[in-house]
Amino acid sequence: MCGIVGYIGPKAAQNILLEGLRKLEYRGYDSAGLAVHNGEKLDVEKKEGPLASLEEALGSHPLPGQLGIGHTRWATHGKPSDENSHPHVDAKQQFAVVHNGIIENYLELKEELAAKGYTFSSETDTEVIAHLLADLYDGDLVSTVRNAVKRMEGAYALGVIHVQEPDKMVAVRLASPLIVGVGEGENFIASDIPAILDHTRNVYVLEDGEMAVITRDGVELFTTDGEPVQREMLHVKWDAVTAEKGGYEHFMLKEIHEQPKAIRDTLAGRIKEGIVDLSQEISLTAEELNGIDRIHFVACGTAYHAGLIGKAVVERLARIPVEVDVASEYRYRNPIITPSTLVVVVSQSGETADTLAALREAQKAGAKVLGITNVVGSSVAREADEVLMTWAGPEIAVASTKAYTSQLIAIYLFGLYLARIRGTRSEAQLKEATEELLRLPEKVDNALSDADTIKQFAEQIKNHDNLFFIGRGLDHAVVMEGSLKLKEISYIHSEAYAAGELKHGTLALIEEGIPVIALATQQDIFDKMVSNIIEVKARGAHVLGLAQDGDTELTKSVDEVFTIPQTLPLFTPVVAVIPLQLLAYYTSVARGLNVDKPRNLAKSVTVE
Amino acid sequence: MCGIVGYIGPKAAQNILLEGLRKLEYRGYDSAGLAVHNGEKLDVEKKEGPLASLEEALGSHPLPGQLGIGHTRWATHGKPSDENSHPHVDAKQQFAVVHNGIIENYLELKEELAAKGYTFSSETDTEVIAHLLADLYDGDLVSTVRNAVKRMEGAYALGVIHVQEPDKMVAVRLASPLIVGVGEGENFIASDIPAILDHTRNVYVLEDGEMAVITRDGVELFTTDGEPVQREMLHVKWDAVTAEKGGYEHFMLKEIHEQPKAIRDTLAGRIKEGIVDLSQEISLTAEELNGIDRIHFVACGTAYHAGLIGKAVVERLARIPVEVDVASEYRYRNPIITPSTLVVVVSQSGETADTLAALREAQKAGAKVLGITNVVGSSVAREADEVLMTWAGPEIAVASTKAYTSQLIAIYLFGLYLARIRGTRSEAQLKEATEELLRLPEKVDNALSDADTIKQFAEQIKNHDNLFFIGRGLDHAVVMEGSLKLKEISYIHSEAYAAGELKHGTLALIEEGIPVIALATQQDIFDKMVSNIIEVKARGAHVLGLAQDGDTELTKSVDEVFTIPQTLPLFTPVVAVIPLQLLAYYTSVARGLNVDKPRNLAKSVTVE
Repeated sequence: MCGIVGYIGPKAAQNILLEGLRKLEYRGYDSAGLAVHNGEKLDVEKKEGPLASLEEALGSHPLPGQLGIGHTRWATHGKPSDENSHPHVDAKQQFAVVHNGIIENYLELKEELAAKGYTFSSETDTEVIAHLLADLYDGDLVSTVRNAVKRMEGAYALGVIHVQEPDKMVAVRLASPLIVGVGEGENFIASDIPAILDHTRNVYVLEDGEMAVITRDGVELFTTDGEPVQREMLHVKWDAVTAEKGGYEHFMLKEIHEQPKAIRDTLAGRIKEGIVDLSQEISLTAEELNGIDRIHFVACGTAYHAGLIGKAVVERLARIPVEVDVASEYRYRNPIITPSTLVVVVSQSGETADTLAALREAQKAGAKVLGITNVVGSSVAREADEVLMTWAGPEIAVASTKAYTSQLIAIYLFGLYLARIRGTRSEAQLKEATEELLRLPEKVDNALSDADTIKQFAEQIKNHDNLFFIGRGLDHAVVMEGSLKLKEISYIHSEAYAAGELKHGTLALIEEGIPVIALATQQDIFDKMVSNIIEVKARGAHVLGLAQDGDTELTKSVDEVFTIPQTLPLFTPVVAVIPLQLLAYYTSVARGLNVDKPRNLAKSVTVE
Repeated sequence: MCGIVGYIGPKAAQNILLEGLRKLEYRGYDSAGLAVHNGEKLDVEKKEGPLASLEEALGSHPLPGQLGIGHTRWATHGKPSDENSHPHVDAKQQFAVVHNGIIENYLELKEELAAKGYTFSSETDTEVIAHLLADLYDGDLVSTVRNAVKRMEGAYALGVIHVQEPDKMVAVRLASPLIVGVGEGENFIASDIPAILDHTRNVYVLEDGEMAVITRDGVELFTTDGEPVQREMLHVKWDAVTAEKGGYEHFMLKEIHEQPKAIRDTLAGRIKEGIVDLSQEISLTAEELNGIDRIHFVACGTAYHAGLIGKAVVERLARIPVEVDVASEYRYRNPIITPSTLVVVVSQSGETADTLAALREAQKAGAKVLGITNVVGSSVAREADEVLMTWAGPEIAVASTKAYTSQLIAIYLFGLYLARIRGTRSEAQLKEATEELLRLPEKVDNALSDADTIKQFAEQIKNHDNLFFIGRGLDHAVVMEGSLKLKEISYIHSEAYAAGELKHGTLALIEEGIPVIALATQQDIFDKMVSNIIEVKARGAHVLGLAQDGDTELTKSVDEVFTIPQTLPLFTPVVAVIPLQLLAYYTSVARGLNVDKPRNLAKSVTVE
């Protein structure tokens, strides 16, 4: 995720672009940059760090001009640095490009261009676009972009300007958001509506495979094949704050709904011929991967809960024994680590202090560390021996949602890759699992569709100060995450239990009317789970059940039921966590609390 | 633990003995028996099973006579069976003996007697006493008993009668309780006061190394060396219900106070020349013990918390990687088990359904199973490949206390034994640790001595519905147990957290005035723990701290502090759990709840 803006009109572009970027900082904030056409040439300024660093640099050297594009970055290819910042330009600085998304075939294109003598000054996929445009340049910006796009695979939104066409800006969208703001004698492009709301409320929302050619006085829409497109203009009624949240009331709800995309992005480029292939990212050889005899997952909070799923995934798929540790405990307990131990640390921000300390401790003890993180260039990404990125984009709400599901996807990819290399699963099994992985975004979408039932669940629990979640096996790990979500933002003291363990003490707390949220997606232990539900029902609990579509059994034993799409048992957590995230969200709203910034908590815990 | 009674007087002995045994059933209930002098010979009836089985047997064949002894058994040496039941007799049925305790040198005595031609019909240590008495018989019951006692090592209370002396009963006490009830023309012996309260309130309490010679009309007390003893008579004012609880208001409090003895009994006979030696009990060879490459602890509830300590003990002392699982999860998660995996199951009752199922699952997968249990002859004791008994005696209160500390002791013994065999600790280190183990009963006694401070803590939490426990490392495992105790009997929703993990979400629940109970006994992480305490203090928590004697630091950061005796870091759980058990107890009492039988719970969970 990144934010892009563009301006063409009678005013000074620089400040309009900077204001726009400020509204898009939630989309990324590790570096920012501008390219402005000064009438003769393209001036570029770009800086690592928050937008303030760019503003400071521009303070002494402003970029004059009335046409320009800007970018705020969330690193994907290449760490945060001045060089990797956008806009990117070709060698002669004829083209300037801002880009949001991923060019999946950029390595191939890069090799091709390098062979022709192009040199690259950054590690990004975006720079490849600038050189590709230069290579294909036919004297016309629009047709050149159209031809370049034909060569590009992936997901992207682009803004492009050319030194020879000071009255024109071209924008393209494929699977990354892009809008065109239509003003009076001035026009705009942006990743999102808030960036242009100060100037106009008239907007065209581009669709996939569409392209806009924008001048001061006009906007024309085409398909990337050149067919004209008619589009109704949207008149935005949102206020600026709502707009920043993409129309959602809170960042958390927005991020919950971004999960299908986050999952797609995290899967992208990692499946070849129907099978998971991480050989481009993980440098451990087959011999080294075969030599691993123990794996430790180490993480905190929500990422720890992803690690619990990791244990099941790796043990079932690759039959390597796994331990899962809370990072603050791991580093002080003198864990048994050998050179054949792989330590997997999981951290959205890549800066979690306890997790980082554990990573260093593990390396000191001689283990290789695989980092799973959402932030390119973060400490975890830099210090881990191997890195598997999640591509969830920036997460603003303190309560993590899309980072968690993306971590699960990274873990599935890793588990399937290990199973492939170690030969613990047949090719047919791997293909079947991989196919199902690719169906998850749609299933998550489906699970998101029945918010009304969950709102009603929220009404039923909102006045309780205590409640319990129960589940068995993978469902237990999922309800631990569901319970943490609820605690974080509703301040209800909820606790998650392995359903079979409740009777060994905590059942004493089950009294008339106490809500129990019971997850029952695992068919092999379904009957046992129903028995545990009957135990709490017998003590008067009000049971809200979550089952798979088609359930006829659980429905008989619980007070209310919500169903989610069926998938492979190992993948159910990705789908099952959705209603639990929504439940936490709607309960927090119903209790009138600050959903995105709960009391006492910080997004990234950089202290021990 | 077992219960013994004896009667001499004008009435029929049988019913008086049976009534007495009924009052002592809390001391054991796996079998019972009587020996009554019918004027000519000693009649014996004994039956496996509860007292009702004996009563049924006697219903058709009553034992006439006015002198007799009786016993209700809690198996130690030898499984519950008719043969192993007491009373035991010699080959000619001249002597009948009931015994509570352990004869530590019984194997040696047995060999000696076997060499002389004595044959044994049971597996017990007690039968050895009967044959020893026969072997030493000099025509006088009293001097024969005196001479026999000189040969016996261990802890015991005995009641003995002889066919040639129909007017006399002899009782001896060494470290197991025994009282003499003094009536009008009739006298009694018993393990505990409730057994005789229907007949008299006048009692002599025997002390260690004392012997009573009892006739219808008189009681004479001597040392076992034959010196006369003067003892003041005790006039019991307790009612029968209080008496059954040894003067404590509840079984739980009684059992909490029995922990020094339970620890001593569990250590007894397992330390040779200052070092732990389990070779008599564990049949795994040094080669087999050296071949173990992974250990799984599997248990439920409180025993699971003992398993968490087990992980630290085994990993630190013997450097074998350990996983700890809740039994209801373990059996269904397809754990990775190889022939070099040792599975350790922990269950007080030895009948916990989930634990038993896990044991069978592990054996099916090819692992050896070590059972740690408190009940000889239980399913775990019978089915496990290796058994390490805890000697806590019967636990009546649903909330487990002395079983837990005894399980910890068994685990320490096992860890030290492994470290010895595998050479991961020097002899000096093993000796130092073993010496410290032997000091634990006294330290637990010390921790029990300041109940007033804990009562005051209980007053401070009793009106809260939610609270948290925090700790790091071993302290985390201990607060999990402390929290479970509180939940079970006070119905307060308490939750235990690894102190460093709280900030990753649950800190949102910390608000003004909420109690947080913080355990800080581990010196290497003490400063980190203080930081976590300051985090919750800053959010308004009311912090009750538990530190080690001599603490000057924690005191500054918390609202109240309770200190416990210092010991080795690995052993602190045994001492640190004491105030937490007392806190749960006094809070339950302050809330007016049923301490010994909390709602919804059963003592031994024999369903899944």
